[in-house]
Parts: sequence; C-alpha cells; structure tokens
Amino acid sequence: MTVKLVVFYTHPDDPNAFDRHYFDTHVPLVRRVPGLQRLETGRFVAAPDGGELTYYRLAELYFADQGALEAGLGSDEGKAAAADYQKIAPPGSRMFIEAVDE
Amino acid sequence: MTVKLVVFYTHPDDPNAFDRHYFDTHVPLVRRVPGLQRLETGRFVAAPDGGELTYYRLAELYFADQGALEAGLGSDEGKAAAADYQKIAPPGSRMFIEAVDE
Repeated sequence: MTVKLVVFYTHPDDPNAFDRHYFDTHVPLVRRVPGLQRLETGRFVAAPDGGELTYYRLAELYFADQGALEAGLGSDEGKAAAADYQKIAPPGSRMFIEAVDE
Repeated sequence: MTVKLVVFYTHPDDPNAFDRHYFDTHVPLVRRVPGLQRLETGRFVAAPDGGELTYYRLAELYFADQGALEAGLGSDEGKAAAADYQKIAPPGSRMFIEAVDE
C-alpha cells in the first residue's frame, strides 16, 4: 500500500528566498532518497472555507509501502534531506505519514 | 497548471462510521464533479515530527487549472459534494486550494 510523507510548511518570512532554497537545494536532496517513487509539491493559494491560510507549501513524498519509507528516511540521503528540512522549515511546519486508500 | 482542492479532516468520533459514509456516499458524489481529474485520499497514521496527529484523513481533488476547479465546485454536482462535506467534516477540518509546482 502506497505511503506518503506529507509535509506542511508554514509561511516563511521571505517566500522567494524559501522557494529558491527549496527548489535549488532541498528538492535535489529529496530526489536522492532511495525508494522515493514520486515527489509532488505546490503552494497553498486560497482557503475556500474562509479560514486562515495556515500553511504556505505542501510536499508529498511517495513510497511503495511503510518499509520503503522507513528505509528511505533512515538512509544517509534521507538524513541529509531531514537535516536540510530542519534548516528551512518555518516554525509550526508539520510532517505526517499518510497511508493512501485510493 | 494543475490545481488541487486539499481537504484535511480532523478526527471523527467514530472513525469506522465516518469512513463508511466517506467511501460509500461522499466519494461517489465527489467523483461526479465535472472536471475532476483525479481523487486521492488516505489516513494519517503517524506524526514523525513527534507532534500531535492533528488530522485524520487527507483528500486531494485534482483539476486542470483554477477555472476548472471553480467550474467544478460551482456545478450542481460540486454543490452536492460540498453539502455532504458540511454533513460529515468534523469541527476544525480545513480546505485549501493548492497550485501544484511539480
């Protein structure tokens, strides 16, 4: 069963600088993680429920299953990506594991 | 540019009853929305950042662009899905529009 690491980034002080680091440095590190099947990322642009636009960016890392995700994140490449995440993620950013149903 | 409606459901009182309604009633309504290219949904199973497991389920509705999303949600089928969402979404559930970069 496909499993995703889902990352919600809160709003950075400087969105342009954040995105530059994100795409030039962070994404290449993530793409090196063994077992990564797919990366999807985008910016939140509106909250149609009328609430606060809580998050700035969503990133979703797809793996074949929980074991592949754990092996990927536990690898040297996974640790390098996690270290870079610690550097760039604004306070309040969150990270979840999602078991995909369909 | 692909645009998604991203829905975060908070924890329902009865997860089994919620999922039953979600898959038997809500998903068929969503699949009828004109312009919907893809639906992906899954359960959050862990928070590897050590924080609270804030949300129960993620749903992502893919559309070709912002115009297609607006037309889909504004249609009769979109309104029927939105009305059902109001019925089942636990308090604190959120809904965002995401512009997908890659």
